Amino acid sequence: MENFSNYLNLVNEAIAGLDLNREPKNLYQPISYTLSMHGKRLRPVLALAACDLFGGDINKAIDVAVGLEIFHNFTLVHDDIMDEAPLRRGEKTVYKKWDSNVAILSGDTMFSIALRQILASKHPNLFEILSLFTQTAIEVCEGQQLDMDFEDKDEVTIDDYLGMIRLKTAVLLGASLKVGALCAYAGENQTRMIYDFGINAGIAFQLKDDWLDAFGEEEKFGKSIGGDIVANKKTYLYLKCLQMASPADRIRLQNFYGSTPGDENTKVREVLTMYRKYRIKEASVQEMEKFFGRSLALLSQVDASSDKKEALVSFAEKLYKRDR
Amino acid sequence: MENFSNYLNLVNEAIAGLDLNREPKNLYQPISYTLSMHGKRLRPVLALAACDLFGGDINKAIDVAVGLEIFHNFTLVHDDIMDEAPLRRGEKTVYKKWDSNVAILSGDTMFSIALRQILASKHPNLFEILSLFTQTAIEVCEGQQLDMDFEDKDEVTIDDYLGMIRLKTAVLLGASLKVGALCAYAGENQTRMIYDFGINAGIAFQLKDDWLDAFGEEEKFGKSIGGDIVANKKTYLYLKCLQMASPADRIRLQNFYGSTPGDENTKVREVLTMYRKYRIKEASVQEMEKFFGRSLALLSQVDASSDKKEALVSFAEKLYKRDR
Repeated sequence: MENFSNYLNLVNEAIAGLDLNREPKNLYQPISYTLSMHGKRLRPVLALAACDLFGGDINKAIDVAVGLEIFHNFTLVHDDIMDEAPLRRGEKTVYKKWDSNVAILSGDTMFSIALRQILASKHPNLFEILSLFTQTAIEVCEGQQLDMDFEDKDEVTIDDYLGMIRLKTAVLLGASLKVGALCAYAGENQTRMIYDFGINAGIAFQLKDDWLDAFGEEEKFGKSIGGDIVANKKTYLYLKCLQMASPADRIRLQNFYGSTPGDENTKVREVLTMYRKYRIKEASVQEMEKFFGRSLALLSQVDASSDKKEALVSFAEKLYKRDR
Repeated sequence: MENFSNYLNLVNEAIAGLDLNREPKNLYQPISYTLSMHGKRLRPVLALAACDLFGGDINKAIDVAVGLEIFHNFTLVHDDIMDEAPLRRGEKTVYKKWDSNVAILSGDTMFSIALRQILASKHPNLFEILSLFTQTAIEVCEGQQLDMDFEDKDEVTIDDYLGMIRLKTAVLLGASLKVGALCAYAGENQTRMIYDFGINAGIAFQLKDDWLDAFGEEEKFGKSIGGDIVANKKTYLYLKCLQMASPADRIRLQNFYGSTPGDENTKVREVLTMYRKYRIKEASVQEMEKFFGRSLALLSQVDASSDKKEALVSFAEKLYKRDR
């Protein structure tokens, strides 16, 4: 894991070195604020890891990696407006600290700055990198739209849900890895495998997020359990329960999700009781294991040193097994 | 002007051929709606004109040109949220027809689609084209932020204002021309001159917009006269009048702009009276002429066939002399 903290340090240094102390202040301060919140820097770290995995020079990938992080943060700034989220990583979101207009325009600017950062790499594979970046950016927007659409849609299937989280979360993780591989001049087969590794691991991570929201330990999780249930989010857990439940329980579950929030605690308790009754926790673990297992099988086929592959497996397992 | 209607047709055909009949509908319908509103297609037409001017193949520039139009429309979709504008080109704005979230996310997607379109050109000068596009996108956001900042700022100078409209409006016109020139492999000197032509003409066009808002004929202008005065916009006219007015009149003018809207008609009439008293109409024409003259002087130095230069001059003059 030593390399991974090295990747993280490189990313944080590069972000700290961005010239964001600029005018107009109302445009650049929110950008600086957002990027200084840190977070896991998962996407740029994965890009550097993939570059390293294929024997590339990570210094040639750092600009692209930072571009991915800035892009990711742009999506968060805009998502927080749409989701009316007051807090992110324990701090006020941009739209709450300033206002919606500031969040819209700073976000737009971050998209451009992300692009400028990727261009700054002047990498010989820039065309492939930008093409993947652009396609991924479109897919991430499609995923966010589907997520919002599902709130009002009655018939959402498990496949719909998996397709949505693939777009909203997994494609950017896959793209980050593939971009790193492209920076290392990996061949087509290899870049496709590392992308698919990221897609499958990304879906497993998101399923784990949903799982923690329902079955995590409150102290470790850092927020109250059942947030998705309160918000009527049609997660894998909910959709699987609808599928498994008796007709009577299905109607009860749908009513909980259709109701305007009365007593939230009762709602969460009742839904969790139903999840237990239909062994949804176990079904969800099985589904996660399926995707995570697929991702590891793909990685094992990648043509790279086993040391570096093992380091990436350890990193992925740590993320997958997290309890918060 | 025959070529110019040819450029316009090419642009409209290319936009009509975009594959926007896609899922999720809530994401793509607003994009399709926005792009089908037509408008002048000024930016892509200028890109094709500049490509043609320098002897390039406009078919190799069409993807880039369309990318510029999609980008411009993205900025309009987001600006309309920020400015709370209900109508654009006589139709409901996206945020009014759908809602703010739809407008934010569709706009973001348009930015990505613009980028995809530019990449699709696979033009050998793609790196220069994308670098200019990215820098321009950042500057346009800075211009929009300055425009919003000026609403609450007491001390705005004429230079501040000219700097703001340069960023908000002129740089994208200059960049459109320069991108067309890059598509035609024009040299550094030539691309800089055509860019500066666009910057100066763009500032003149925006000054003309402000002028029409105060001195246009209502029927031709298509909206009520004095919209900028009602909205307390610190235009060239207002700032020039502050500069010219007696201390007493300056305070009166500032009070009109500081006041919460009482009788809008009275306010507009009084401010226009003051503009007449200090010959602001004439001062504004002089300022416009200065920028437009500079733009024509730059164009005359460009190394291209005089026929094509004359066609571009006619097009620019038509825009400049418009009465609506």
